[in-house]
Amino acid sequence: MNTPLLVVIGTGLIGSSFAKGAREQGLFNTIVGIEPDAERAERARMLGIVDEIATSVDPDADAVLIAGPSDTIAAWVIRLSEHAGVVFDVGSVKSAILESARTSLAGIPPRFIPCHPIVGSERQGPEAAEGSLFAGHKVVITPHADIDPDALALVAGWWQQLGAKVHQMEVSVHDRVLALTSHLPHLLAFAYLQQIDAEQLEFAGGGFRDFTRIGASDAALWSAIFALNKTPLLEALDQFERSLGNMRTALEAGDTNGVRRIIHAAQQRRLEFEQHE
Amino acid sequence: MNTPLLVVIGTGLIGSSFAKGAREQGLFNTIVGIEPDAERAERARMLGIVDEIATSVDPDADAVLIAGPSDTIAAWVIRLSEHAGVVFDVGSVKSAILESARTSLAGIPPRFIPCHPIVGSERQGPEAAEGSLFAGHKVVITPHADIDPDALALVAGWWQQLGAKVHQMEVSVHDRVLALTSHLPHLLAFAYLQQIDAEQLEFAGGGFRDFTRIGASDAALWSAIFALNKTPLLEALDQFERSLGNMRTALEAGDTNGVRRIIHAAQQRRLEFEQHE
Repeated sequence: MNTPLLVVIGTGLIGSSFAKGAREQGLFNTIVGIEPDAERAERARMLGIVDEIATSVDPDADAVLIAGPSDTIAAWVIRLSEHAGVVFDVGSVKSAILESARTSLAGIPPRFIPCHPIVGSERQGPEAAEGSLFAGHKVVITPHADIDPDALALVAGWWQQLGAKVHQMEVSVHDRVLALTSHLPHLLAFAYLQQIDAEQLEFAGGGFRDFTRIGASDAALWSAIFALNKTPLLEALDQFERSLGNMRTALEAGDTNGVRRIIHAAQQRRLEFEQHE
Repeated sequence: MNTPLLVVIGTGLIGSSFAKGAREQGLFNTIVGIEPDAERAERARMLGIVDEIATSVDPDADAVLIAGPSDTIAAWVIRLSEHAGVVFDVGSVKSAILESARTSLAGIPPRFIPCHPIVGSERQGPEAAEGSLFAGHKVVITPHADIDPDALALVAGWWQQLGAKVHQMEVSVHDRVLALTSHLPHLLAFAYLQQIDAEQLEFAGGGFRDFTRIGASDAALWSAIFALNKTPLLEALDQFERSLGNMRTALEAGDTNGVRRIIHAAQQRRLEFEQHE
């Protein structure tokens, strides 16, 4: 590996931030971008995030990062199944990708390393990219039965050099945890925003602002995530509706102590979260 | 009025911030605090937010601000019904207060001006007080049939001198709007946090952080608000559950376009909100 080459598929916030951080850390000599949006591709090149734009993956690439929308990842994994380099992704749903690959290929490529960096994504595009985006954040890797341990160690090392804390997690656990901690809040914010009209918005304050921030998320990306993680998400929704039912019952019964106990439990959970941070 | 006197009942964030701002603007010469929490009272005095602490309202006070918890406001309004000064409050639910006063007194005191400043409240106590807390924020006044227009103008003027934008609103509209824009998001965040355990919290990211910020709110204050605004809140919850049902139906049917349309509508609503700000 005299001139290590990284190909980044998708030059959005996550792909571009990895490219920028990898360059800052000197992990690769050359970074090539693949990006269907020609304007975004050009911006990534102008910003120096990628050295050049290509339309197909160089067979000599040492590493290929799949950073496109969640519903395009499995097709890339399948297309790159014979690629000699290390292939890794950043999708926020993992079982569906592995299932697709397993079905199409009768086995998951050993050098495909499924990754999910847990970072915010309300900013978009290569102009928002930061090499420090992953610093201090968790990257979950969900190893599969066929995984190549050397490739796994290599990818984990790259994330660590970008400052991330790498965790390995069983894939179904990952998808259930993310359904609860990320996909369900998005779903609730989307459903909540349906009943707010323009007049009411004028009287919305700081609580509303924070609660609905994720409501500005991209519709195409999130409908794809929901579809890919449908079963765990519906299970999380079932759980939520039971809690909501408990709250409604206490409220309707005028059981102020019961309502207070529920709120108190929520508050404790939130304070616990703040201590983790 | 040689030495205008303000009495502030409750030296929490809102009461103390009004006192601080009023002093900065020179609205009153003397500010007296009434506060059942002796430690908080002493902190408010040490910080110079109030000049002194009292245990009862001076009958010569020019203005009395009721800034205690929502479920204590009506009792103060009733107790102060014969007071010669202007009485105003900052409670986030208004119909219940007016109903109580009307029932107990056979009429609402003309010089009681019901106010609701729409500002965040995750910080607490006199040490978090800022004279600029209300600047640029809305204060809703919900006039009643018996209201004294001079007292209304006086209170509206004080809020304006603190930089707030004063809006008048019919009381039932206020309570319905606030149920939707503030109380319902709190209820949803509280219900949501019930199913998150410590292990899952470790993998919660920025979306979770913002969505659940209001989940740290005080249990006694919020169970009181929910109880006082029960009917509008249950109506808002009914509306939300219909939207949630639509989302679930689309998701279960694998109707990704339908899910995308719902998310897109939410996103538009949120972007509209951002333009308002």
